[in-house]
Amino acid sequence: MDQYIISSRLKQVRNALGKTSLDGLVLTTRANVTYVTAFGGDDSWAVVTQKGVYLLTDSRYTEQARSECVNCRIIERKGPMQKAVAKLVARFKSVETVGVEKATSFGVYQSLKKHVEAKVKPAGQIVEQFRCIKDQKEIAAIQTACKLAEKALARTRRFAKAGITENQLAGRLDFQIRSLGVTNSFDTIVAFGANASRPHHKPTDKKLRKNDTVLVDFGVRYKGYCCDLTRCFTVGKTTGLYKRAYEVVKQAQAAAIERIKPGVDVRRVDAAAREVIKRAKLPVFGHGTGHGLGLEVHELPIVSDKAKGKLQPGMVFTIEPGVYIPGKLGIRLEDDVLVTKTGRKVL
Amino acid sequence: MDQYIISSRLKQVRNALGKTSLDGLVLTTRANVTYVTAFGGDDSWAVVTQKGVYLLTDSRYTEQARSECVNCRIIERKGPMQKAVAKLVARFKSVETVGVEKATSFGVYQSLKKHVEAKVKPAGQIVEQFRCIKDQKEIAAIQTACKLAEKALARTRRFAKAGITENQLAGRLDFQIRSLGVTNSFDTIVAFGANASRPHHKPTDKKLRKNDTVLVDFGVRYKGYCCDLTRCFTVGKTTGLYKRAYEVVKQAQAAAIERIKPGVDVRRVDAAAREVIKRAKLPVFGHGTGHGLGLEVHELPIVSDKAKGKLQPGMVFTIEPGVYIPGKLGIRLEDDVLVTKTGRKVL
Repeated sequence: MDQYIISSRLKQVRNALGKTSLDGLVLTTRANVTYVTAFGGDDSWAVVTQKGVYLLTDSRYTEQARSECVNCRIIERKGPMQKAVAKLVARFKSVETVGVEKATSFGVYQSLKKHVEAKVKPAGQIVEQFRCIKDQKEIAAIQTACKLAEKALARTRRFAKAGITENQLAGRLDFQIRSLGVTNSFDTIVAFGANASRPHHKPTDKKLRKNDTVLVDFGVRYKGYCCDLTRCFTVGKTTGLYKRAYEVVKQAQAAAIERIKPGVDVRRVDAAAREVIKRAKLPVFGHGTGHGLGLEVHELPIVSDKAKGKLQPGMVFTIEPGVYIPGKLGIRLEDDVLVTKTGRKVL
Repeated sequence: MDQYIISSRLKQVRNALGKTSLDGLVLTTRANVTYVTAFGGDDSWAVVTQKGVYLLTDSRYTEQARSECVNCRIIERKGPMQKAVAKLVARFKSVETVGVEKATSFGVYQSLKKHVEAKVKPAGQIVEQFRCIKDQKEIAAIQTACKLAEKALARTRRFAKAGITENQLAGRLDFQIRSLGVTNSFDTIVAFGANASRPHHKPTDKKLRKNDTVLVDFGVRYKGYCCDLTRCFTVGKTTGLYKRAYEVVKQAQAAAIERIKPGVDVRRVDAAAREVIKRAKLPVFGHGTGHGLGLEVHELPIVSDKAKGKLQPGMVFTIEPGVYIPGKLGIRLEDDVLVTKTGRKVL
């Protein structure tokens, strides 16, 4: 990881901290820890002050931390994490108030309050707000993840024949992903026929029939960055309803993508997709039209009718409208889109 | 899911609630929600009062919830989860104080405080304490998960030949797991040679050599229940140090398992494993000797030198001592063990 990137991220975080009453920030979520330290492992926290960055980890990760961390001191804790934070913070006389991020568990917050001598206060989503805007390297990583995902699916398509089960097809796809040297960014969804009406269906031992439909929702993680794609295709003959619904979802996705450019209210993007489906008199999907992605497969911004804010260059999110008719069909089309300076780019 | 099981779990939870000042409990973590509702999906919360159980979910999961939930009302929310909880709780005049579990995020806790009219208080780990003791069906599910995991690894062993990469071998294993109709309980770890000295190594494109060692740490989820196993084996010739370390880890694991029976302090189990490695003058592992598993791959009890409490029948946890020598080798042997009425059973 580039030292310059980490430094500039820390500068942003410290600037934001400077505008609060907080002298330090305790990061407990993996993606936020990675963002400011470049450490890719689990079960580790970071403490950021105006002067230093500290990774609190344990012996399982020390070797990895030494090879990955940038600009940061590694502390191998022996006891509980909360006590390690307390000990560290006690060393800094200038740190009178530390912030705890929104995603930290309530139990951890209580325990930090108990152990840390400095004041412990809520810090909101300081790191998340910066993670939302991707730099060139991050965008390149997501784009590579998309390409590898497409490649893995292309290599899997030939197995989608009558008789294969959802589980087996998911297994074939996951194997191709691993063979390309990457991992899944979340558990692969494979749904045949009417099973696809459950947007988050889990693969079963249901067999693909001679004339059937397939929905695959999957992603790849490359250099820590996630992609998230959904593809629908048919095997043999299909119904007129399916064909029509597929076309409508495709149009809905195109309409939402077309509306993406800097300065646009995110709700307008969401509305664009829904309008198309509504006009076609098909049931409008209940989930959001999209979600940000990066170090996590779900992050800011949220693209829904409840979302706030305007699009900014460097945001990357999914556009994934769908049509679901229980007992009949489910279609969702999902791509990952970058907001560029002048418009958008499908990654 | 058996209606009787869910009822008896709810009875336990309500009894525990009755001993506090709480009239209701908001569950936000997936495993706890599953435990009291039988719902296996994501992004859904449960509210438990003395009279009812409510699943708060969204349209992605409504169909699944209807087919899985037992004894519980399903509420399909449209807006944010916190507001749905507030609306629900407002309906019950008798609910003046609701508890929020330890694992709930701090941001959610703050938001519930803001939206819910009733008092919002910390509730600790009420559900986790009951999840720690498994019933016959849960034990059977973990045992089946272990058997399927062993089967998947046995079918993968023939691919462990010079030239295959860590990623490819992990992919082969994951494919076998899917083919058996189940899923991974966590991301498979495959480490060749010295890579295994990082207990949580991530598979790379490193190739297996003619004379090499393999560590595989993986698990299967069956009917919602996880297993977690680690196996080490060699390909071709190996060093004397490796052979000796392997024997010592095996003895350490046997010593810890032998000490398991109801009433024993968990720290004594941890100590048993460490003593063997210390006596052999090999570096003692820095992680705990084991962790509980069930609906989650890491749950109570923790088996470490910091742990508190005594073993009880029905607890299921891993025993996984290791020896790690950076640049040279890593060996960990992990099995899942049940505390029986009179002793222990390796599942």
